[in-house]
Amino acid sequence: MIVEMRRGCTQDQVDAVVERAHQYKFEVQLNIGTDKMVVAILGSHTGSVPTEIFAVLPGVESVTRIMRPYKLASREFRDEPTLVHVGGVTIGGPRIVVMAGPCSIESQEQLMTTARCVAQAGASVLRGGAFKPRTSPFSFQGLGPEGLRLLREAKRDIGLPTVSEITDPHHLELMAEYVDMLQIGARNMQNYALLRAVGQSGKPCMLKRGLASTVTEWLQAADYLLAAGGRDVILCERGIRTFEDGTRFTLDISSVGVVKQSSHLPVMVDPSHAAGHYALVPTLARAAVAAGADGLIVEVHPDPANALSDGLQSLTPSDFTRLMGQLKAIAQAIGRTL
Amino acid sequence: MIVEMRRGCTQDQVDAVVERAHQYKFEVQLNIGTDKMVVAILGSHTGSVPTEIFAVLPGVESVTRIMRPYKLASREFRDEPTLVHVGGVTIGGPRIVVMAGPCSIESQEQLMTTARCVAQAGASVLRGGAFKPRTSPFSFQGLGPEGLRLLREAKRDIGLPTVSEITDPHHLELMAEYVDMLQIGARNMQNYALLRAVGQSGKPCMLKRGLASTVTEWLQAADYLLAAGGRDVILCERGIRTFEDGTRFTLDISSVGVVKQSSHLPVMVDPSHAAGHYALVPTLARAAVAAGADGLIVEVHPDPANALSDGLQSLTPSDFTRLMGQLKAIAQAIGRTL
Amino acid sequence: MIVEMRRGCTQDQVDAVVERAHQYKFEVQLNIGTDKMVVAILGSHTGSVPTEIFAVLPGVESVTRIMRPYKLASREFRDEPTLVHVGGVTIGGPRIVVMAGPCSIESQEQLMTTARCVAQAGASVLRGGAFKPRTSPFSFQGLGPEGLRLLREAKRDIGLPTVSEITDPHHLELMAEYVDMLQIGARNMQNYALLRAVGQSGKPCMLKRGLASTVTEWLQAADYLLAAGGRDVILCERGIRTFEDGTRFTLDISSVGVVKQSSHLPVMVDPSHAAGHYALVPTLARAAVAAGADGLIVEVHPDPANALSDGLQSLTPSDFTRLMGQLKAIAQAIGRTL
Amino acid sequence: MIVEMRRGCTQDQVDAVVERAHQYKFEVQLNIGTDKMVVAILGSHTGSVPTEIFAVLPGVESVTRIMRPYKLASREFRDEPTLVHVGGVTIGGPRIVVMAGPCSIESQEQLMTTARCVAQAGASVLRGGAFKPRTSPFSFQGLGPEGLRLLREAKRDIGLPTVSEITDPHHLELMAEYVDMLQIGARNMQNYALLRAVGQSGKPCMLKRGLASTVTEWLQAADYLLAAGGRDVILCERGIRTFEDGTRFTLDISSVGVVKQSSHLPVMVDPSHAAGHYALVPTLARAAVAAGADGLIVEVHPDPANALSDGLQSLTPSDFTRLMGQLKAIAQAIGRTL
Repeated sequence: MIVEMRRGCTQDQVDAVVERAHQYKFEVQLNIGTDKMVVAILGSHTGSVPTEIFAVLPGVESVTRIMRPYKLASREFRDEPTLVHVGGVTIGGPRIVVMAGPCSIESQEQLMTTARCVAQAGASVLRGGAFKPRTSPFSFQGLGPEGLRLLREAKRDIGLPTVSEITDPHHLELMAEYVDMLQIGARNMQNYALLRAVGQSGKPCMLKRGLASTVTEWLQAADYLLAAGGRDVILCERGIRTFEDGTRFTLDISSVGVVKQSSHLPVMVDPSHAAGHYALVPTLARAAVAAGADGLIVEVHPDPANALSDGLQSLTPSDFTRLMGQLKAIAQAIGRTL
Repeated sequence: MIVEMRRGCTQDQVDAVVERAHQYKFEVQLNIGTDKMVVAILGSHTGSVPTEIFAVLPGVESVTRIMRPYKLASREFRDEPTLVHVGGVTIGGPRIVVMAGPCSIESQEQLMTTARCVAQAGASVLRGGAFKPRTSPFSFQGLGPEGLRLLREAKRDIGLPTVSEITDPHHLELMAEYVDMLQIGARNMQNYALLRAVGQSGKPCMLKRGLASTVTEWLQAADYLLAAGGRDVILCERGIRTFEDGTRFTLDISSVGVVKQSSHLPVMVDPSHAAGHYALVPTLARAAVAAGADGLIVEVHPDPANALSDGLQSLTPSDFTRLMGQLKAIAQAIGRTL
Repeated sequence: MIVEMRRGCTQDQVDAVVERAHQYKFEVQLNIGTDKMVVAILGSHTGSVPTEIFAVLPGVESVTRIMRPYKLASREFRDEPTLVHVGGVTIGGPRIVVMAGPCSIESQEQLMTTARCVAQAGASVLRGGAFKPRTSPFSFQGLGPEGLRLLREAKRDIGLPTVSEITDPHHLELMAEYVDMLQIGARNMQNYALLRAVGQSGKPCMLKRGLASTVTEWLQAADYLLAAGGRDVILCERGIRTFEDGTRFTLDISSVGVVKQSSHLPVMVDPSHAAGHYALVPTLARAAVAAGADGLIVEVHPDPANALSDGLQSLTPSDFTRLMGQLKAIAQAIGRTL
Repeated sequence: MIVEMRRGCTQDQVDAVVERAHQYKFEVQLNIGTDKMVVAILGSHTGSVPTEIFAVLPGVESVTRIMRPYKLASREFRDEPTLVHVGGVTIGGPRIVVMAGPCSIESQEQLMTTARCVAQAGASVLRGGAFKPRTSPFSFQGLGPEGLRLLREAKRDIGLPTVSEITDPHHLELMAEYVDMLQIGARNMQNYALLRAVGQSGKPCMLKRGLASTVTEWLQAADYLLAAGGRDVILCERGIRTFEDGTRFTLDISSVGVVKQSSHLPVMVDPSHAAGHYALVPTLARAAVAAGADGLIVEVHPDPANALSDGLQSLTPSDFTRLMGQLKAIAQAIGRTL
């Protein structure tokens, strides 16, 4: 950390900064410029203390981080890419993994029809929501345990591993039994009680980016999962909140590259929630593959016009099949498979 | 809802829209313009269905809401302002209520010193965190149950009712026993499992605005609390996420006015988290009172330089006392008390 | 436009809305719901009047647009894609056009070296700044007229048409003589004096998106160019301002798709300014091509470490050549050429 | 500036950083930590070079500024508050200055009625737009020179100095003759050709904050005015662009405090453009005065329902008069006058 002192600060104020650094066992180097005194605080664990422990001291003008505030998720902690294995599927390797299925599980028929289609089109993981976090308490909230039962049945029939969102630590045992990978939604990215519980479970987990979270905060949230004992963590970009209202969220396509530079964890993209409209989903899916995402999670529904949730952003089976063809060509163009 | 049809849509497509509206028992009126056909969907509960049930139909160009998507929190549902009572203190009336105390409860001495000071300076509610949601898993996470015990002790000694943040539905019983009002933090504003649990408990609750949530979504989150049985809900603006980095968050001072127009619930402001720096807290506190906020929640620490969390944005007891004097003068200038 | 009346509004207030609509020669249809009265205002030029002419009337609750507020740039005005021709190069057709060159023109040698390299690697247009809009008045402001002279010389030698940014209406005559296409920068997207002057000149023009502008406002700015007599207008997405600080700006990759749905104008992407760092430029360039952009504008410098501006986001000639190979493969995968 | 080297960087890479610093005549101090090498670059003019001159060098991980990138507008350059004098009115002193008048000058009668009212209610400066920058080319663009003539006439009759927006450097001579203070609008905050021209004119100038500009960039734009020879510069916060759509823009009330800490220039607030709706203007005006703004600029129209622009956010004369009473009470409460 770099502590910039105010012009005209006293020697006592500088000493207090140095003393505090020493309390934390950090090294200190003083830089005495003509205008400003700057104190460099060095040490490999400076990233894990908040800047304010220095910023709050009298005579301090500003404090700047050098070490990143996340640790376990960083490339500095582990340089080799993490490969996540979910029921025989590997995420983070050369093959781009597509997860697909309905937003909400609505019925056995709806789920099975979709599952069959997405499997046939080349998806490797089946998605389906049983507990749905909805903006309004008056909207459909999912089938709950019955949905999980249907999802497991679909898995047995079709042979694809499954992913479903967990919204409440109380559901952990139930969900761990029924699904292969847990998803933590954007609105719960900083629900630390949930992160800790999921991390402790040891289940593979897909962590969606919070809609107002920086990449740094997202990786700090991943640190919660990893620190609690999780290992198989996948990140998923799904759009952030901006002033633009032509799409539901603004897909931060750059985050794929930023994560790759900063972290060893695989990173996927959810084009459906970002777009908010089926007509834009293929555009974003193609961009994500070209940008280097390790996978996609796509909403598909056999009859979007009658979906109980997110129908507007769901692809029909035939649109999804067509999209998979395009994605395969792009994957090949960048030297990967799909 | 207003459904705009695409130019050149077919009669069948219009019929499908009308039929769907009738399924929901909505009234329909057709507006046939020279360029566009527009279908007005009318009825008092159109606000509680998502726009996409129409947007997803073929031939539809766009769908616009007329009724607001929140209901129980709206002025249309209840025109008279809600007064919330917390241990003898009324929030939402002519008196502006100041809640103050440390970010985290750190020790008996720290809490008691702060409590005495804020009570003397005119605060009506004592705040103090026992379970702290921190961005990094490596930061201090609060004293937990021991913190709650200290908070109750402080209440007994000083006589102020208390507020503390709940982060996990598992803690509900414990917290309901020890504190007078539960706080739901910004990062949990859309943690629906937590909202439901708190709403069902019937305890007074302060709902902070999510850092990427619109006022509309904030009121929908309040709907979760109210729909679950809560009544004593207070809203609290604490700054939203924007591109500006001169403050920790951008206090949306306008939201005080927008909430007053749209909702019957009291609205407070947290100047500490928005500013992120003690030197800016008084500026924001004064603005909030002048804008018409029903209360403030302010972080105060007897020794900010050694605080275990949020020291940088905590006022010292003497700064807080000085601020209270300024706020009283402004309250008087706008015809209220404090 | 849809005018929603307040509950309990008077007949006189409704009449005033109707009368105002008639003043503008709009058709009116009344929708009388059980809860709300809604007035539909219909007519093909409702998009060109501001909503506030109704919103300001007593008894009005809200006003919603049906017709889009831009006109000449819209697909409704012209359904067929506009092809822009710049010195023998066509933008908006099946071939993806890459424009490349240095941020600032610094010397004959720097420009010629870059020009030769980008031409060889397959770029079709040469970019180079002579008048540089810099955030600080103390930064290098470009070579001015001398830069333009060098640019024309490079064009003669290499045979590529040129594009350069115009920042001042006073420079129009000079620039129109020296360069083939004028660029309007993000910070000037709503500099209407400049838009009008450039539109009147009839020169091809690339209009960058303002960093806080919605796609709708961007198309309204294009309307200024088109209304003033311009025809050859190209849009260019270059990243918007958000809270994320891992990149210089957040590339709104979805905007490529949104523009294609809404407008007949070609749309390009500038990956250099969005990324702000050379290491992320290829990621964004690949995503842009896969998303369907009609072209790219990329900063290339023979010696980025000594560039006078934007060195950090400039590719070296060899990095650019490698990128062009990747982009060709992706273009082919989506059925286009480059 | 603080240059953080990558782990494992070579001695040559460090030497290159040092050499570059010496080229700029900066001092250098090396900080060799166990994990990272950090190079401190010191000197009073480091703020005026871009960080990328170091960031672009091989082996560099990141570069962080210590000195702020603006200079002439900073408190470090001039610690004493600047007082701006406009036709006998002083801005930046203990008295809070209210500027008021119509958005657009529409007719002599409209302007005179408004001017009389705002003068009587206590405004000290008359505002009125003659050249209007409108989002759509099809909206009313102002009366132009005729508007300026009416404004000067109103000044003579009523005795208030005037402020009006300049949108084109070509209008400078004309406007300098007719109005007392020039306004640079939010959309032109980084129109450097305009800033330079206005700075050179020596006229007092009100610089509105760009809607996606940080406070730092705003002060850099002020540097353009000051570097060109301007002295009498007033800053004006008018709301920034965020995701919240309940108001036209989000008033960044904190910026008043941030500017006061960082700059010697006076800072005003425009509650009208931020709110976008007359019903919220008083809320924001009260907050601005309480936060410590040196002045307000408020839109007032004798007949908002028939205004040619911004009617929705204009106060009627009687609302304005009532507001002035409230503001006087708040000003007094914080020890100022109005």
